[in-house]
Amino acid sequence: MAHPGDLSALATLLAAGEVQAQEVVAVIGKTEGNGGVNDFTRGYFTDRLMNLLASYLNEAPEEIARKVPCILSGGTEGVLSPHYTVLCRSAAKAATSESKPALAIGASCSIDMPFELVGTRGHAQMVAETVRAAMEDAGITDPADLHFVQVKAPCLTSDRIEALRAEGKTVPAPNASVSMARARAAGALGVAMATGEIPSEQVCDDSFLADFNLYSTCASISSGVEVLCNEVVVLGMSPAWSGPLRIAHRAMQDAIDLPSVRGVFSDLGFAEGAQVAEAERARLRAIFVKCEPDQSGQIHGARHTMLNDTDIDPQRHIRGAVGGLVAGVAGETRIFVSGGAEHQGPFGGGLIAVIAETATRQTEGQDR
Amino acid sequence: MAHPGDLSALATLLAAGEVQAQEVVAVIGKTEGNGGVNDFTRGYFTDRLMNLLASYLNEAPEEIARKVPCILSGGTEGVLSPHYTVLCRSAAKAATSESKPALAIGASCSIDMPFELVGTRGHAQMVAETVRAAMEDAGITDPADLHFVQVKAPCLTSDRIEALRAEGKTVPAPNASVSMARARAAGALGVAMATGEIPSEQVCDDSFLADFNLYSTCASISSGVEVLCNEVVVLGMSPAWSGPLRIAHRAMQDAIDLPSVRGVFSDLGFAEGAQVAEAERARLRAIFVKCEPDQSGQIHGARHTMLNDTDIDPQRHIRGAVGGLVAGVAGETRIFVSGGAEHQGPFGGGLIAVIAETATRQTEGQDR
Amino acid sequence: MAHPGDLSALATLLAAGEVQAQEVVAVIGKTEGNGGVNDFTRGYFTDRLMNLLASYLNEAPEEIARKVPCILSGGTEGVLSPHYTVLCRSAAKAATSESKPALAIGASCSIDMPFELVGTRGHAQMVAETVRAAMEDAGITDPADLHFVQVKAPCLTSDRIEALRAEGKTVPAPNASVSMARARAAGALGVAMATGEIPSEQVCDDSFLADFNLYSTCASISSGVEVLCNEVVVLGMSPAWSGPLRIAHRAMQDAIDLPSVRGVFSDLGFAEGAQVAEAERARLRAIFVKCEPDQSGQIHGARHTMLNDTDIDPQRHIRGAVGGLVAGVAGETRIFVSGGAEHQGPFGGGLIAVIAETATRQTEGQDR
Amino acid sequence: MAHPGDLSALATLLAAGEVQAQEVVAVIGKTEGNGGVNDFTRGYFTDRLMNLLASYLNEAPEEIARKVPCILSGGTEGVLSPHYTVLCRSAAKAATSESKPALAIGASCSIDMPFELVGTRGHAQMVAETVRAAMEDAGITDPADLHFVQVKAPCLTSDRIEALRAEGKTVPAPNASVSMARARAAGALGVAMATGEIPSEQVCDDSFLADFNLYSTCASISSGVEVLCNEVVVLGMSPAWSGPLRIAHRAMQDAIDLPSVRGVFSDLGFAEGAQVAEAERARLRAIFVKCEPDQSGQIHGARHTMLNDTDIDPQRHIRGAVGGLVAGVAGETRIFVSGGAEHQGPFGGGLIAVIAETATRQTEGQDR
Repeated sequence: MAHPGDLSALATLLAAGEVQAQEVVAVIGKTEGNGGVNDFTRGYFTDRLMNLLASYLNEAPEEIARKVPCILSGGTEGVLSPHYTVLCRSAAKAATSESKPALAIGASCSIDMPFELVGTRGHAQMVAETVRAAMEDAGITDPADLHFVQVKAPCLTSDRIEALRAEGKTVPAPNASVSMARARAAGALGVAMATGEIPSEQVCDDSFLADFNLYSTCASISSGVEVLCNEVVVLGMSPAWSGPLRIAHRAMQDAIDLPSVRGVFSDLGFAEGAQVAEAERARLRAIFVKCEPDQSGQIHGARHTMLNDTDIDPQRHIRGAVGGLVAGVAGETRIFVSGGAEHQGPFGGGLIAVIAETATRQTEGQDR
Repeated sequence: MAHPGDLSALATLLAAGEVQAQEVVAVIGKTEGNGGVNDFTRGYFTDRLMNLLASYLNEAPEEIARKVPCILSGGTEGVLSPHYTVLCRSAAKAATSESKPALAIGASCSIDMPFELVGTRGHAQMVAETVRAAMEDAGITDPADLHFVQVKAPCLTSDRIEALRAEGKTVPAPNASVSMARARAAGALGVAMATGEIPSEQVCDDSFLADFNLYSTCASISSGVEVLCNEVVVLGMSPAWSGPLRIAHRAMQDAIDLPSVRGVFSDLGFAEGAQVAEAERARLRAIFVKCEPDQSGQIHGARHTMLNDTDIDPQRHIRGAVGGLVAGVAGETRIFVSGGAEHQGPFGGGLIAVIAETATRQTEGQDR
Repeated sequence: MAHPGDLSALATLLAAGEVQAQEVVAVIGKTEGNGGVNDFTRGYFTDRLMNLLASYLNEAPEEIARKVPCILSGGTEGVLSPHYTVLCRSAAKAATSESKPALAIGASCSIDMPFELVGTRGHAQMVAETVRAAMEDAGITDPADLHFVQVKAPCLTSDRIEALRAEGKTVPAPNASVSMARARAAGALGVAMATGEIPSEQVCDDSFLADFNLYSTCASISSGVEVLCNEVVVLGMSPAWSGPLRIAHRAMQDAIDLPSVRGVFSDLGFAEGAQVAEAERARLRAIFVKCEPDQSGQIHGARHTMLNDTDIDPQRHIRGAVGGLVAGVAGETRIFVSGGAEHQGPFGGGLIAVIAETATRQTEGQDR
Repeated sequence: MAHPGDLSALATLLAAGEVQAQEVVAVIGKTEGNGGVNDFTRGYFTDRLMNLLASYLNEAPEEIARKVPCILSGGTEGVLSPHYTVLCRSAAKAATSESKPALAIGASCSIDMPFELVGTRGHAQMVAETVRAAMEDAGITDPADLHFVQVKAPCLTSDRIEALRAEGKTVPAPNASVSMARARAAGALGVAMATGEIPSEQVCDDSFLADFNLYSTCASISSGVEVLCNEVVVLGMSPAWSGPLRIAHRAMQDAIDLPSVRGVFSDLGFAEGAQVAEAERARLRAIFVKCEPDQSGQIHGARHTMLNDTDIDPQRHIRGAVGGLVAGVAGETRIFVSGGAEHQGPFGGGLIAVIAETATRQTEGQDR
């Protein structure tokens, strides 16, 4: 991507017929905004993507946007590179493949969120239902086969807060920034409800952003002003699918947990060594990371300064640091690193999931 | 450090007699400002340090400041932790130690810089002379024994630029930011002149910030508004010294060069593995890193966005990313990561130097 | 505007027939990005605008973009409000109006800029030719009738700089930020060449960003990554035009020149008083301001800190301050305040131009 | 001030005997940090100031700091200039003066705040008591004679929050940023309790940052990590005092309330006109402003973007804008503009107070 509106790489693949528009299940990407409430690079990219797909499908861009989740995380701090991953599924290609089980993909969108529910238990329940629908779409029945569940949840803005007040409704968060955090908590706990990691009755409003012993090990939640519904994409392994792609994931215990990052590459059969060697790099198809500045203010016993910085947002700090760490292992900077990992992996840590080919390079299902 | 004016840890050691004020050769630290021209955390720390030392020595703070270099890099982006390393040398302790060769330390300050020379060949020559004086102070005669040469060089401010204009003198840089970069170039090439890495006649004004094939493999240069002279600290190995400390360094080929980072720990005898294990972490005494956003705009073939960001300075971006990478290997966040690595290691890369004990923990010479 | 992609207000006017797409001459607006190289809110808005106009005109968006300048300045610091002004001209409406002379509008775009010319005398010459074409389009023959000449000029990016290097061409600026400043200088001096304020032979590369005694009193230049050609809009008074709108302008001597700001409102017949009263505010149709942080580092003898701030760009500082000043006089925050006023008005100062109705409110030609 | 540690102007006055150290009642200043939790320019300045005064008084710096409030607001966005005002009172000078009533000054510090009370009703009560002590110190008995009450109140940091949690105490705010806002609310409502503007029983925890109909018209509250107690300075008019100085104040209805700003200068007898003329500028001795980004998200019906900006803190935005406005009227940029005006003047607006001489310039009591 040359800029957040640059879809030329996908346009070329569509024009050449290498990607079929109707096979696109979801898009997950990283744009170069600030990742906060006023990051409009996500809306810009989405607008261009839907217009591009609409030129191939017989539907309005708005209709496609409701069916094809486009999940973007803003912020390419440090070495990170703007990019997007197009998740496709093809019946034709699958039939010719021998390799099972393989990566399975499913997606679903909820109804539009009533803003008074943003970041509440009601929000979590809506997410849980949408995850179940996405699993069904993917043909995954056992939650143990899930490796990565990406949710994009709506948040409040100052305008929306004003509107709620004007209508006399409950305002579930005092400002936009808090609402983004609470929406991410609702998403993560909603995933945990769907997977059964947490019994549904344990999830209550008071535990949001408070009881961090409650978390999902495969949830990745973004929140942004540009979506009105909860968009869910599930990635896992399924015997019903075939193809060259595999996925693995690990929790990160803290922001500098290099062993876990290295571990997930070992899980996928990459050769040992500090960094994935250039020859093996072509096998890498997508790297997804969630992380969070440790709220204790310390890492391995030493103070960090991310939480008290008026000039750089804590999420921008942590994305840059963890992005640098993961890039060092992968030898690759096109990494989806998303902050705001509340209830997504251990407190102060996070999650890494990697998609890679088994052996020889094939082109379906991925465009970076 | 609880804040940039917090010298309480050193005050305690001085009060207990564990550190003798007259044995302090230099202080190298990382404060939590923005690392730019308007970062006053460096001046604040220096002011407090010199007042503290003055309460033990029979000299004014200003006099001590001219003899004891206090070299600070602002900016603890991401996981980095504010800290300082106090470099001491003790004849008494040395005599009782058997272990040779060991870490050797020397320091020197130049005369006050005429501002019209900032960032010019004249500046580089002044630095070269000061490095030679510091080597003599350390008892290092062979440049091959140098592992880390830290220089703090003065830069221009808008006031200083105005003053030069008013005096009718040459203004060697159009603004403060450019002058900091040129001063770092002058420092690095000055080190290379002193070590013989580059023949003196090859260094000319036109090569500054232009010919990046010219570099030193052990130079680390900071530039800041708060110094008036060039402060130089040299660290190396010397058979004339004894004690438990060793130093090693490696060049970093790019900002994600994890193998080189891992390599320097191996050079010092740390066990193999992704991260230094907790048991071995007590051996770590100081980690110094220089890095630089790749001016080509790419890392391993993918675009990065550090150079075009109006909201976060490129140096803040790169410090956060490389800090995350090195912390992952060291299992430790108290790392001196300094941006602005022009002519300090390969283009787009940098340098890492580590001081560690050979075996059992000893306390002299270090306070973090 | 609810966000940078929100064209709903114009869409409503077009749908109602109150604005005819073919009558749109140019759009000038303020979006809420950072106003720097990585501000993509301008590209987002332009993309949406051209798609909207294309749905009414029988042309591709790319074709319309080459004929209808869309000049945006990013950055709504402080009290400033995101908005856009649609400049239209209508033969039908003009015929029914008695009031002459009135506001006259013209526009023109140059050919695509060869990047090696960005910010050079060749750039200025191209702008001068384009201004002359825009004056002809507006039916303005006497430069004394010009009140505001807006130019949007291309700049370099790190990619473009690499490309120039790869092609072995001259790189006219060392980085993107410098290229934006030089492009603005070229635009301003190009306007001054067209108006005759500066003899053409006096404009040379060395005077760019150096000799600030050379300036135009009615030039307003933006520079951005998203345009490839020089887009010019001229606004003035002409006896050939009729309608209720008038324009006036004044130079600002410094960033706190309240008397000149107040003066331009007096020129347009607004009642005396500190702030335009609510009853008269409906007459206001557009306010254009250019400003610049004083490069001397002082205002009225006291130091300012805009030039040495690593966390906030100087242009963001000055837009916020001057925006607050002008909003106080106008009682209105939808103000086009654009930084980067090199050679546009006096050194350290700038320019203000205001469009207002003579008496009763009419709706053509403006949408905010 | 050349930088936040530059006390040279006061040092010169002290050395010359023009200011007596024991006559210094309080210092109010503006330093060039970011004004947030991690702004250490305030601590740096305070450290230097107390050391300077200690060199004249027979007391330790820490003791002086408990008696002489040093109230600093970080952030010189836009045109604002770093400066400090030294408030002195002299029995000798007063006796020779005929002019009564005149500016009266008093100060007081509370005991150290228990951190669990920060931003609660208990905090407000402590402030109210301290204001009464300061009024007594100033010899002001009628609250109607108060024009400006400056309070510096402690806030939480992530360390302090952790400590409270570790001790099992109530944590009165979830993070440092919220605690700063609540501490300012406590300060403002404490002032209003002392002045009788609000009956004491109406002030409860729930009204903090919620019921903005509760406010004081002369309270100016800062909050910072560097103070442990509540420092209060009161400024008013008193027949018990004499001298050339007068003070006046007005509420600002919104952030662009130019008429009120202009009004306070008229109250002090400055000639009418858009800007204070150069000849009268020497009469100006201090300008204090409090302001706040309108939480409704709008000013005069148009959206502003201050509340949703991830890159620039809302307080930095508003200080820059209001600073520009006031500087335009005063013709002077050394203005104390402090954000965080919750419960300090009308919602979305704030307060301005100005100290000026009656006629001829005299030097006591002020150093800028």
